[in-house]
Amino acid sequence: MKSYIEISQLVATEIAKLNWNKEPLGLYEPIEYVLSLGGKRIRPALTLMACNLFSDDVQPAMKSALALEVFHNFTLLHDDIMDKADMRRGMPSVHKKWNDNTAILSGDVMQIASYQLIAETPISELKRTIDLFSRTAAQICEGQQYDVEFESRREVDAEEYIEMIRLKTAVLLGAALQIGGWIGGASDEDAELLYEFGVNIGLAFQLKDDLLDVYGDEATFGKKIGGDILANKKTYLMIHALKLAKGKDAIELDYWIKNQDKNVSTEKIIQVTNLFNKLKVNIICEEKMQFFYNMAVAKLEKVTVSDNKKQELRNLAGKMMFRKD
Amino acid sequence: MKSYIEISQLVATEIAKLNWNKEPLGLYEPIEYVLSLGGKRIRPALTLMACNLFSDDVQPAMKSALALEVFHNFTLLHDDIMDKADMRRGMPSVHKKWNDNTAILSGDVMQIASYQLIAETPISELKRTIDLFSRTAAQICEGQQYDVEFESRREVDAEEYIEMIRLKTAVLLGAALQIGGWIGGASDEDAELLYEFGVNIGLAFQLKDDLLDVYGDEATFGKKIGGDILANKKTYLMIHALKLAKGKDAIELDYWIKNQDKNVSTEKIIQVTNLFNKLKVNIICEEKMQFFYNMAVAKLEKVTVSDNKKQELRNLAGKMMFRKD
Repeated sequence: MKSYIEISQLVATEIAKLNWNKEPLGLYEPIEYVLSLGGKRIRPALTLMACNLFSDDVQPAMKSALALEVFHNFTLLHDDIMDKADMRRGMPSVHKKWNDNTAILSGDVMQIASYQLIAETPISELKRTIDLFSRTAAQICEGQQYDVEFESRREVDAEEYIEMIRLKTAVLLGAALQIGGWIGGASDEDAELLYEFGVNIGLAFQLKDDLLDVYGDEATFGKKIGGDILANKKTYLMIHALKLAKGKDAIELDYWIKNQDKNVSTEKIIQVTNLFNKLKVNIICEEKMQFFYNMAVAKLEKVTVSDNKKQELRNLAGKMMFRKD
Repeated sequence: MKSYIEISQLVATEIAKLNWNKEPLGLYEPIEYVLSLGGKRIRPALTLMACNLFSDDVQPAMKSALALEVFHNFTLLHDDIMDKADMRRGMPSVHKKWNDNTAILSGDVMQIASYQLIAETPISELKRTIDLFSRTAAQICEGQQYDVEFESRREVDAEEYIEMIRLKTAVLLGAALQIGGWIGGASDEDAELLYEFGVNIGLAFQLKDDLLDVYGDEATFGKKIGGDILANKKTYLMIHALKLAKGKDAIELDYWIKNQDKNVSTEKIIQVTNLFNKLKVNIICEEKMQFFYNMAVAKLEKVTVSDNKKQELRNLAGKMMFRKD
């Protein structure tokens, strides 16, 4: 069994080996750039770890693992245009460093590159892998569409939000694990359990993100705390706050949501956070996160490999859940 | 053997059957819209006709044929954002009818949809089909990138232009034919010849487009004549005119290129066309087009099926070459 650290090093080495030094440079340089910005490389790690549960040799799953990372970064590239996000991992995003057209076209060719990698899946697993990959890819676009639509919608309920993050974030973690399982030789049942493990970890992961954006430590989180509050993002916290606030609290929350004055940003973050605390929506969010985490662990427990083999995935799930960044 | 008309009707029926009535509607409606705008459906027709050379049953090639049409329309959708083209086939383009973000995201999911269709290629042909499809898709993005780069470059030579249109337009026709051939059961050599036939027809087709934009009949062409001249597009005609114009002609051409005054548009088109005629660049372009057309026909002749079976493809090539729209 390989440790998560060993797997991560393997992934980093293989990503660095991908060759983007191709003509026209104006098309391929942004891909090299966005992949060089780093990130946790969780998705390819999950693929290889899932493969490793059933097979000592993880190499057959490497190209599929890389496909998921390239696809994930492609979505970031296009999302940053749509969200007008000028920074990505502390650096200018592609549409800012180059321009919108470059970001569109480099993103397109990056999506194709992810399919070129997924097509290197061992032939016995190719058809179902590509089908799951495509279904997942489409779901991610659907999730992004819901995310955009929710911004301009007055009311979004908690179930809709969970469905949105399931599509936008969670299913890719599920697919990463299922594909790795298949390539490693898992039974259909085990591969399905790994998918469910991944989806539930993904949901917990996203709720953790919502919490960190308000309650995180700026130094370790790496982003400004309160960004979601300033953007009036309908996170799980905000959706519940809007539902639970009555009387004076409702008026106050409404006041701050309508107040876009940049001079009172700090005050807005403090006051909305106070309301979140008063309404205990942080606890609601933590409980939901815990629920998905428990679900995930329960799925992993059912996978029919010896308990010690699952330890690395169990640890990683815990790390994703109790992380500070 | 099916006639081109029969094949076209088959394609139209199958495209209409594709189901885009899916949630979120905001994501899938633009796909339905762009595919409903019509177009010649040349690519899927070529796939089925190539298949039909070797097999009476064209159904096994249907999904791959549709994949090419969906992919082609996806590129139009994203190109229209990049080119700020507000109209497509006489109707508002997607980014105009909706907005840029919708056009980006619907395009992305459309690209995924094309891969979902290509994944339905008969399993024996799947791997090489998906590899050729991806290579071709990447080449189309490369061609678009060169096209964009050429706009702001002072000099572009004729060879570079041919390479750009090969990537942007011609290789997809080649791939359409090769994939159809493979699925029909063609030998590697025949499938390769069909690819070459397609690429050469594609090159001739694009040069014809350049000619029609200047010398076409507005009523049948369906677009304003002289659009490329007004946009100072570096077409095959313009590249040669810039190279051949000396003395007074060079000064005049330069004057009109720099003159962006909308009040003299008609005059600009007339004068630049006169210069084209004087420099005989229309003849250079026609000869080059004829060269590629002859090349294409020669490749088709070498395909090892009986001569009468090739008649429909030969007719179609002629139609594409001697078209007025």
